[in-house]
Amino acid sequence: MIIKGNFLYTSSIDEFVVKEQVYLVVKDGKIEDFYETLPTEYAEEKITDYGTAIIIPAFNDLHIHAPQLINRGVGFDKELLPWLETYTFPVEAKYQDMAFADRAYKLFLNRLWAVGTMRFSAFATLHKEATWHFMELTEQSGLSAYIGKVNMDRNSPDILCEKTDVSLAETEELIVKCNEELKHVNYILTPRFVPSTTEEMMTGLGKLGEKYDLPVQSHLSENRSEVAWVKELHPTIKTYTDVYNEFGLMRQDKTIMAHSIYLSEEEKALLAEKGVMLAHCAQSNADLSSGVMPLRKNLEMGLRCCIASDIAGSHTPDMNRHIAASIELSKINWLSHPEEKALQLPEALFLATKQSGSFFGKVGSFEKGYDFDALVIETDEMNGMLPRTPFEKLEQYIYDGDDRNILARYCKGAYVTKPFELS
Amino acid sequence: MIIKGNFLYTSSIDEFVVKEQVYLVVKDGKIEDFYETLPTEYAEEKITDYGTAIIIPAFNDLHIHAPQLINRGVGFDKELLPWLETYTFPVEAKYQDMAFADRAYKLFLNRLWAVGTMRFSAFATLHKEATWHFMELTEQSGLSAYIGKVNMDRNSPDILCEKTDVSLAETEELIVKCNEELKHVNYILTPRFVPSTTEEMMTGLGKLGEKYDLPVQSHLSENRSEVAWVKELHPTIKTYTDVYNEFGLMRQDKTIMAHSIYLSEEEKALLAEKGVMLAHCAQSNADLSSGVMPLRKNLEMGLRCCIASDIAGSHTPDMNRHIAASIELSKINWLSHPEEKALQLPEALFLATKQSGSFFGKVGSFEKGYDFDALVIETDEMNGMLPRTPFEKLEQYIYDGDDRNILARYCKGAYVTKPFELS
Repeated sequence: MIIKGNFLYTSSIDEFVVKEQVYLVVKDGKIEDFYETLPTEYAEEKITDYGTAIIIPAFNDLHIHAPQLINRGVGFDKELLPWLETYTFPVEAKYQDMAFADRAYKLFLNRLWAVGTMRFSAFATLHKEATWHFMELTEQSGLSAYIGKVNMDRNSPDILCEKTDVSLAETEELIVKCNEELKHVNYILTPRFVPSTTEEMMTGLGKLGEKYDLPVQSHLSENRSEVAWVKELHPTIKTYTDVYNEFGLMRQDKTIMAHSIYLSEEEKALLAEKGVMLAHCAQSNADLSSGVMPLRKNLEMGLRCCIASDIAGSHTPDMNRHIAASIELSKINWLSHPEEKALQLPEALFLATKQSGSFFGKVGSFEKGYDFDALVIETDEMNGMLPRTPFEKLEQYIYDGDDRNILARYCKGAYVTKPFELS
Repeated sequence: MIIKGNFLYTSSIDEFVVKEQVYLVVKDGKIEDFYETLPTEYAEEKITDYGTAIIIPAFNDLHIHAPQLINRGVGFDKELLPWLETYTFPVEAKYQDMAFADRAYKLFLNRLWAVGTMRFSAFATLHKEATWHFMELTEQSGLSAYIGKVNMDRNSPDILCEKTDVSLAETEELIVKCNEELKHVNYILTPRFVPSTTEEMMTGLGKLGEKYDLPVQSHLSENRSEVAWVKELHPTIKTYTDVYNEFGLMRQDKTIMAHSIYLSEEEKALLAEKGVMLAHCAQSNADLSSGVMPLRKNLEMGLRCCIASDIAGSHTPDMNRHIAASIELSKINWLSHPEEKALQLPEALFLATKQSGSFFGKVGSFEKGYDFDALVIETDEMNGMLPRTPFEKLEQYIYDGDDRNILARYCKGAYVTKPFELS
């Protein structure tokens, strides 16, 4: 496959690459190389020319609650813990109804496709059947994902409180089925967060992690009340981070921890050592009055951080708006912490593409050997009367673009069409 | 006109009204009354039934730079003053080209229509011809506005630096033409801001204000460097606020000052006394790293504050997103200033509808005698499987809705269709 256009991508947090009007050769779904002039060996190939549009790596969202997309925006007058009880849990309980789950998950996949999130790592609900259905739908959608059934066996409403052994057995069942039957979906262990999983549950999940060499996702240190609660639940374990580690849930280079706002230096050292990906959810942290993660400091000390949506702690799945929110929050933070330089757009793009993509392998950049996951974007509305550089087009898309600006989407080298038609 | 539906509006900052499944009678474009059961005298009238949709007052945006809509999102790596020079002024200079101005202003009016801003107060550019054209287009659009030609005669790039007498003469010409020929557009005096207007210019504009009893709009205390610059330019005048006042540009109950972040108590007292409307532009203040207006404190001391977009200091004209941004910023502010309670959604709705509407008369509410400016909004995507209260629909629209959720728009009692078809 040969594509001509203006390519923009990052190779590191401080290296932003723009290649204007070049040819890209993609072989077996992977980036072969860029050429200013097309080599003669490709002379007979069909070229897809995207003209003045820009082409960027597709987004990867490493923290999203898929069943909550339909709940976005609701109940933001509350903080985390009461918000979970009042708004989140009642909607998640509805996923025992398969007709409900079917429509909701199709809406979810359609929306992620629309806004250019080609890969994600999602919390489902605790329902085995609905989670499996979601996995199958994702497999059909053309997107690629880690998905986990949520585990929760304490401090949860009756209708969402599992028996530990049943939960673990169902988890293992899904792991095996997922390994056997699906190609584009991988299982990820998904304890909801410490307050809703017993030590027995965490121990069991840690063992499954070992047995099947699985990644893990959960929440860490999002809100001051939550942090205090964890301390109360596990008085003998030193920190929130240590709780996960103690039960084998900090799997080396395979763990995503969302939020991670209120961390001690000691916790950060452990997270760095374990190669944990910290999913920074700026919009959610504002919506739920949670706090401000010291992103710049964390990056400077070498922690792996990416930008994620956290639907429905945040109010939109659109990753361009989370890039904007992360930049805005970092600017507000800079006003009172002038030593923490605000995030620049190319840096934020890196965090939402190559950095988050690294959880999937060589994903999120246009360097040689990377999977070709891409979005083709056009923002011109002045019919060429106001010429824009590719970077300005990127800025305009990030800050005020939406799905209508995305002309084409690719995942693993394949053109992806809208997954589901819904009435 | 009789409309049936779910009406949501505010009568004050702390009174949010929900009227479900009622009939609204509109006479001569104004709200007559609500009825649970329709009185027999209306039995023959046609009823427009909006079913389960919600109906809210349309938005009023009191601070927007119309020529900059096409520049949204560009250049946010800079702060205010260098951003103006690098990005804003070069684009504004293009409005001497009438073909450019025609398309750009049509795009602007289409977008404001799309996102439900039925009234606005806009800065144009300094170009008389293009500004008049914008006024005429607005008159045709079905929207309603205050519009002013920008005045700037110092510290501006050559191409945007006016001769004072010419600028004042052209301003008066536009005032007269606007008064004589337009019904839905009123002139508003628009000195860009203190650093770009000489004392002679400000004096002249103050006199025009007196002569024609005109409103005034400008910028106040947005950025620390700007505040310092004003002090340098006018060392003998005590405060930034006093500069405008000294030259007759704080017209009683008829003045909009955007941003107003860094104010002394003395300045606030003067602004309260003069009934000045402070346009709070949360998204812009984050985008340009300007600061955080102490909104809660200002409201508590009785200052008139509204929520405005400040395109293109911000990146979107969509007022629902500015409501969300104001709430988010107030939550972040609350984390470090727990005595400043975060903004609630109904309060923010008030600031973007009734409060901003007060600049136009009885506008922005559904109380008796108010102009019927309204948006009909539907957010359901689950085909009724997840029933939502009208307030939850409002939340979902504010936080993640866009123009596609708006089914109908009314201004002054008239149904407004898309203003312009553009290729």
